[in-house]
Amino acid sequence: MDEFARIAEFFAPLAGEAGLGLRDDAAVLTPPPGRQLVLTVDQMLEGVHFLPGDDPALIARKLLRRNLSDLAAMGAVPFGYLLTTALPPSLPEGWLASFAAGLGRDQRQFEISLLGGDSSSSRTDIALTATLLGHAAPGQALRRNGAKAGDEIWVTGTIGDAVLGLEARRGLRADPTGFLTRRSLLPDPRVGLSLAGIVNAAVDVSDGLVQDLGHICQESGLSAVVQADLVPASPEAAAQGPDILALRLTGGDDYELVLAVPPEKSEALRVACAGVNVTKIGMFKAGRGVELYGANNALLNFAASGWKHF
Amino acid sequence: MDEFARIAEFFAPLAGEAGLGLRDDAAVLTPPPGRQLVLTVDQMLEGVHFLPGDDPALIARKLLRRNLSDLAAMGAVPFGYLLTTALPPSLPEGWLASFAAGLGRDQRQFEISLLGGDSSSSRTDIALTATLLGHAAPGQALRRNGAKAGDEIWVTGTIGDAVLGLEARRGLRADPTGFLTRRSLLPDPRVGLSLAGIVNAAVDVSDGLVQDLGHICQESGLSAVVQADLVPASPEAAAQGPDILALRLTGGDDYELVLAVPPEKSEALRVACAGVNVTKIGMFKAGRGVELYGANNALLNFAASGWKHF
Repeated sequence: MDEFARIAEFFAPLAGEAGLGLRDDAAVLTPPPGRQLVLTVDQMLEGVHFLPGDDPALIARKLLRRNLSDLAAMGAVPFGYLLTTALPPSLPEGWLASFAAGLGRDQRQFEISLLGGDSSSSRTDIALTATLLGHAAPGQALRRNGAKAGDEIWVTGTIGDAVLGLEARRGLRADPTGFLTRRSLLPDPRVGLSLAGIVNAAVDVSDGLVQDLGHICQESGLSAVVQADLVPASPEAAAQGPDILALRLTGGDDYELVLAVPPEKSEALRVACAGVNVTKIGMFKAGRGVELYGANNALLNFAASGWKHF
Repeated sequence: MDEFARIAEFFAPLAGEAGLGLRDDAAVLTPPPGRQLVLTVDQMLEGVHFLPGDDPALIARKLLRRNLSDLAAMGAVPFGYLLTTALPPSLPEGWLASFAAGLGRDQRQFEISLLGGDSSSSRTDIALTATLLGHAAPGQALRRNGAKAGDEIWVTGTIGDAVLGLEARRGLRADPTGFLTRRSLLPDPRVGLSLAGIVNAAVDVSDGLVQDLGHICQESGLSAVVQADLVPASPEAAAQGPDILALRLTGGDDYELVLAVPPEKSEALRVACAGVNVTKIGMFKAGRGVELYGANNALLNFAASGWKHF
């Protein structure tokens, strides 16, 4: 099947109106009136972000969800995406059909459509990128640089499941319910929360809580004081025993949000996040860097602050 | 040098205002008022679109220019781009500095800026993508489906240089002036021409003249009749001898424009393209497919209609 047949069979059915059926040189769209555009791009690479035998539908959905999480961290409403695929000649039979089915499933769930793309061969590894478009009210996008001293630090969901799930997938730890594995393979981006006017700064946990919280500190010129025992763990993570705190706080791929919230807005935050658990884990103060305190108020010090891609 | 240091040193200096210094989760931009957005994405892969030892600055510039050509084919004005890089651990010293310098040079030439991106490691090959954003007046973007029977077929520049240059780079043919090689490495996207109201349909020559012209035929429900001897050759291509016609007409990577122009608009086309040579090569008529005629009016038939990426 050649490039054009592949596009017609697998990708054209995913195209929204602005994608022009994927039959032109580019997409044409009318921006939502009175809104700003929010744009982000992320890639998924074989051997780096996924393993060669992973389910193509889950790879597709995680590709979209990692980008959707970036839009969530900006408080933006997603509406479409562009996609590139670089696929080796040895691609397993059925891979593309499964990959496209995964895209279609999450398109429906998150109400986005395919706007355009490019497909090519690669020599050996699969390489995928998605550019996500969203919109936000003018001046309302959530930045990393808006935190104020005295703001509380809140996180959505539970922290550390994904890195434990990655270890489970590598056979390094038990995951009897499959919950941790699922959290590693299929994150839940926190799109759809109405955080504008409540949250002063936000970031998503992609590289690890400590490192990503550090981005807010750096951009806002503040220090973050975190009570490590307040950082929410799922029951499945807690069941792994007491020695995983450093791993949970520095492991990446959770795609939860870290939020800077003025104390008087904490109730509004709970209302805005109805259906998504939110937990206060600390506070911003003058200074720099992230300080982590244990249950006995001892300062904790981890060797690595999070994932870096070299 | 880790990911954040690389971004700060090489990419942050390329960021436009909407890129927020590449220090947030996404870019935020206000669309040009009253304009539609035009978006396209293309990739450059080591071993597929460039050779391992190629000049990183030229790779960067061709990555931008392939995308700029797609915007030109839509009649759009480019204004920014997002970039992903997947780079192996074995990247040569100085590669990124040269790559970023190439981006910067073409940013200035084409008046675009970097809006965002993602950088990652790869296992072996370099993989690069750029998502280009442009804008056009509402309803004025040039489509492939607008050609009318009786429209003339015009092309910009010269056709077939890039495939000859590729062969020269592979040692298969002489290129004493280096012109053909340069056309292969560094195309000139035809942005900045005011074609709205003159041109009924457009496409850029990326996969080969016959194949790309065939896209207009298919989308417009027409046939194209081309006088092959009218298809303009550069002096350097003509010097390669008479046996290269099929190669020139089916080789890709020229990034010239193929235009459907009503006969009464041909003078307006020349004015709009001042500084860029345009040549009439045939006409659209009822029917389907591309018909090529030689100097003696014999129907030509080529084995391959153009590049396909498998």
